[in-house]
Amino acid sequence: MQLRELAEKLGCRLVGDGETEVHRLAPLHEASEGDLVFIARTTDLPKLKTSKASAAIIREGSPPCPRPTLLANDPYLTFVQALRLLYTSDQPTPGVHPSCVIQEGVRLEEDVAIGPLSVVEAGVTIGRRSVVGAQVYIGKDSRIGADCRLYPQVMIREGVEIGDRVIIHSGTVIGSDGFGYVRGEQGIRIKIPQVGRVILEDDIEIGANVTIDRATIGVTRIKRGTKIDNLVQIAHNVVVGADTVIAALSGISGSAKIGDRVTLAGQVGIVDHIEIGDDATVGAQAGVAKSLPPESVVLGSPAVPHLTFKRRVAAASRLPQILNTLKRIEARLVSLESASGTEGQQSQTAQSISERGAH
Amino acid sequence: MQLRELAEKLGCRLVGDGETEVHRLAPLHEASEGDLVFIARTTDLPKLKTSKASAAIIREGSPPCPRPTLLANDPYLTFVQALRLLYTSDQPTPGVHPSCVIQEGVRLEEDVAIGPLSVVEAGVTIGRRSVVGAQVYIGKDSRIGADCRLYPQVMIREGVEIGDRVIIHSGTVIGSDGFGYVRGEQGIRIKIPQVGRVILEDDIEIGANVTIDRATIGVTRIKRGTKIDNLVQIAHNVVVGADTVIAALSGISGSAKIGDRVTLAGQVGIVDHIEIGDDATVGAQAGVAKSLPPESVVLGSPAVPHLTFKRRVAAASRLPQILNTLKRIEARLVSLESASGTEGQQSQTAQSISERGAH
Amino acid sequence: MQLRELAEKLGCRLVGDGETEVHRLAPLHEASEGDLVFIARTTDLPKLKTSKASAAIIREGSPPCPRPTLLANDPYLTFVQALRLLYTSDQPTPGVHPSCVIQEGVRLEEDVAIGPLSVVEAGVTIGRRSVVGAQVYIGKDSRIGADCRLYPQVMIREGVEIGDRVIIHSGTVIGSDGFGYVRGEQGIRIKIPQVGRVILEDDIEIGANVTIDRATIGVTRIKRGTKIDNLVQIAHNVVVGADTVIAALSGISGSAKIGDRVTLAGQVGIVDHIEIGDDATVGAQAGVAKSLPPESVVLGSPAVPHLTFKRRVAAASRLPQILNTLKRIEARLVSLESASGTEGQQSQTAQSISERGAH
Repeated sequence: MQLRELAEKLGCRLVGDGETEVHRLAPLHEASEGDLVFIARTTDLPKLKTSKASAAIIREGSPPCPRPTLLANDPYLTFVQALRLLYTSDQPTPGVHPSCVIQEGVRLEEDVAIGPLSVVEAGVTIGRRSVVGAQVYIGKDSRIGADCRLYPQVMIREGVEIGDRVIIHSGTVIGSDGFGYVRGEQGIRIKIPQVGRVILEDDIEIGANVTIDRATIGVTRIKRGTKIDNLVQIAHNVVVGADTVIAALSGISGSAKIGDRVTLAGQVGIVDHIEIGDDATVGAQAGVAKSLPPESVVLGSPAVPHLTFKRRVAAASRLPQILNTLKRIEARLVSLESASGTEGQQSQTAQSISERGAH
Repeated sequence: MQLRELAEKLGCRLVGDGETEVHRLAPLHEASEGDLVFIARTTDLPKLKTSKASAAIIREGSPPCPRPTLLANDPYLTFVQALRLLYTSDQPTPGVHPSCVIQEGVRLEEDVAIGPLSVVEAGVTIGRRSVVGAQVYIGKDSRIGADCRLYPQVMIREGVEIGDRVIIHSGTVIGSDGFGYVRGEQGIRIKIPQVGRVILEDDIEIGANVTIDRATIGVTRIKRGTKIDNLVQIAHNVVVGADTVIAALSGISGSAKIGDRVTLAGQVGIVDHIEIGDDATVGAQAGVAKSLPPESVVLGSPAVPHLTFKRRVAAASRLPQILNTLKRIEARLVSLESASGTEGQQSQTAQSISERGAH
Repeated sequence: MQLRELAEKLGCRLVGDGETEVHRLAPLHEASEGDLVFIARTTDLPKLKTSKASAAIIREGSPPCPRPTLLANDPYLTFVQALRLLYTSDQPTPGVHPSCVIQEGVRLEEDVAIGPLSVVEAGVTIGRRSVVGAQVYIGKDSRIGADCRLYPQVMIREGVEIGDRVIIHSGTVIGSDGFGYVRGEQGIRIKIPQVGRVILEDDIEIGANVTIDRATIGVTRIKRGTKIDNLVQIAHNVVVGADTVIAALSGISGSAKIGDRVTLAGQVGIVDHIEIGDDATVGAQAGVAKSLPPESVVLGSPAVPHLTFKRRVAAASRLPQILNTLKRIEARLVSLESASGTEGQQSQTAQSISERGAH
């Protein structure tokens, strides 16, 4: 595509040769001829001189640039739009591969594509233009909306409801049994049948090898627009709000309720039955054991407000010095006491503290 | 089902109209007509008035309830039994789907069901009434007991032994190679062949996307009755005792030995070659680096007894105040020293501590 | 195999009856007749007396042993070599199972084996002697090198490049979309198309249920010789160096760069865009938020040098004692002040600290 054409489609100002041909977007350090690069920081502009990139997207108002340039007010958003223009995604031809096993009473709306060796059980509905990859399993009576994409080897159990424009990556399991038992005699655990459902609303994306358990009774629900990274665990009866983001390796325990526009960073743990308020942010590796009000920002395990956490980390770093200070203070007390003739109380000294262990 | 019939089958006392029809169990906040609800806490009883539920299970001895009621001594257990009565699980018709690939020398006992597109390698035995879902893989010479359920896309490698009444959820991998290498020249790692096995005893349930590695030599073993949640890692040569519970995203390193009736909460890590005693409880996100005696209750990373942990967390929360107290003490010492004519020792002040960083 | 033959092949010194037949390697506590055991520690030698093992591998220079013995300078390496001799791995017959779906333009080099019900998309190349298990998916234009092994149910997306002698375990997903969005109006997230690739260099092993995301643009790269355990997350545009080891349940965030010969223990988290220097070691459950120089050894969340971490843990264990010491110091100050007639400043006492909580 010519840079001039791209500029028009993106609504950017063009500086330099509009005839320049660009074929690909590339990171600055990997760019070769025909590549369009995206410069996030002005300090990276000089690197463009030694790059083989043919053109660059930079922020309107940046210093002049040694390549033909697209100037954008929001260069990151322009970069994403350029990606969409240059990479037309690989939409497969509609139709069901003959190797699939499609059971009775399946309803496929127009232009659905299903890849090889997938299994669709009885009573399933799949909406218009949805693409189901190879080796996918869709359980009885589940419903998939329109314009969805299920990548190869996704597993959807029975009775799951999925909205429109939902993307699910490979290896992800939706609707597995929740982890619930009652203690019988002699500590033996009796399985609680997990007869509830999972509902994924519209515009959700779920990463690879995620697990979302069905409710015991009722519904495990993910609300619209929420994005979930790889290897995340969502337990039974959890409700995740709208436009929330959950990073990799996080786990949300049973019946927890996560608000709208919440951010859970990586490896976060949320205990069962608590509530995380709207717009809260939970830092990486935090462990949240109590409900959080809206707009909380927490860190640590157990999680505390992030300023408290930072103060504690800073104070903890001074602990060895505190021990030293205590020793010096005690020495000064002894001097004062002997000078004044006051008898020092029999006390455990800081010295003895630093020689004894914990517990 | 009529409430009267349910009361008889569950051995509960019925209060109110025995003709009431119930079709479904539902959570209190979602219940509609025809639903039976389960009231865990007396404080939830008033909510029943505004609920559309047709009937309720409550604890014997609770205040009167505005709906036809089943009174139970253990209402939670009764709820589970009611689930079993109202939801007859979807037992598939026995038989092997014609799309499966079943190799030579496979022995299927009576009433086994195998779903579409599964692969069963040579020498496998599957016990009576076991249900193998679609797209499952069972490796050479593995043995599955009776009344097992393997959900779609489970992967069992060769030589794995599985007892009776074992449930394995989708995406789980049993018998993958352990993570073992020897360091050769120049730091290059040479793979140690992993030629051991995995044994899962009776009455085990394993969640979705779990990984259980085969032993290097010998056996990785999970003992009877143990329940494992989603996304858990069990390394080579681990032994997990009976009736133990392991929550999501926990990892047990090589050759660790977990006792009977142990509870590992979510995201717990256990280092290699240690032993966790019977009836121990390890709190969420704890990291256990040393063997634990029976009945230990630990928290934290590194894990310590839970009371120690709580004391430390409480003390840590007072650290900034400790710094302030030290400053005030030093000021008082200076006053005393100047009053008594004693020369204060050259000392690092608390002030200087709070201004300097860590390390 | 006779012990004499094994000794010759392994280059070990034989002590005792060379006619002894050994069939299997076994752990000491499980050994039966015909088993060769490996004694790692001299203290385990007495256990051999009560073992049914037929022979043992022990370190050259150890005390005499009550069984026919192979003496080795590096007994662990010898054990690994013995494993390779006694367990010839199960190399399947070359050929493509007729149940597979192989699209057009696929190039299979000589002696490739592909198990049942796998899908190989258009434009894929698979190198000589590589073994692809059952139910594997290989996306369009991906290239697999020679002598690779993909276990059943591996999922490789389009455009992935895999070197020679790479092993990938079941359930692992290579080339799923990175987790990247731009914030549009009203907090709605717009997906950034993930059009980059994944390159796995030679001699890599990747565990079960791992996820490695493709780059946004450019490459997510794992360099030669690196070994990755189960359930690990590698985000988009990450670069992992050569001969690095990553233990289970660790997560590496987007664009992070991990050096050569690095060790990440279990459940480690690495934030995005940072750099971990060559030969660094990150302890279990550590959370690394800042770049680390080469040869760092860190622990904790946030991670600090391991000696600092140990000092802090030790100091934290003394916190309750520090509170007691402060109380005693204050009592002594009061005595001194009343003796000298100095008025104690109005101050928050240690007592009050220990009675008040934090936040």
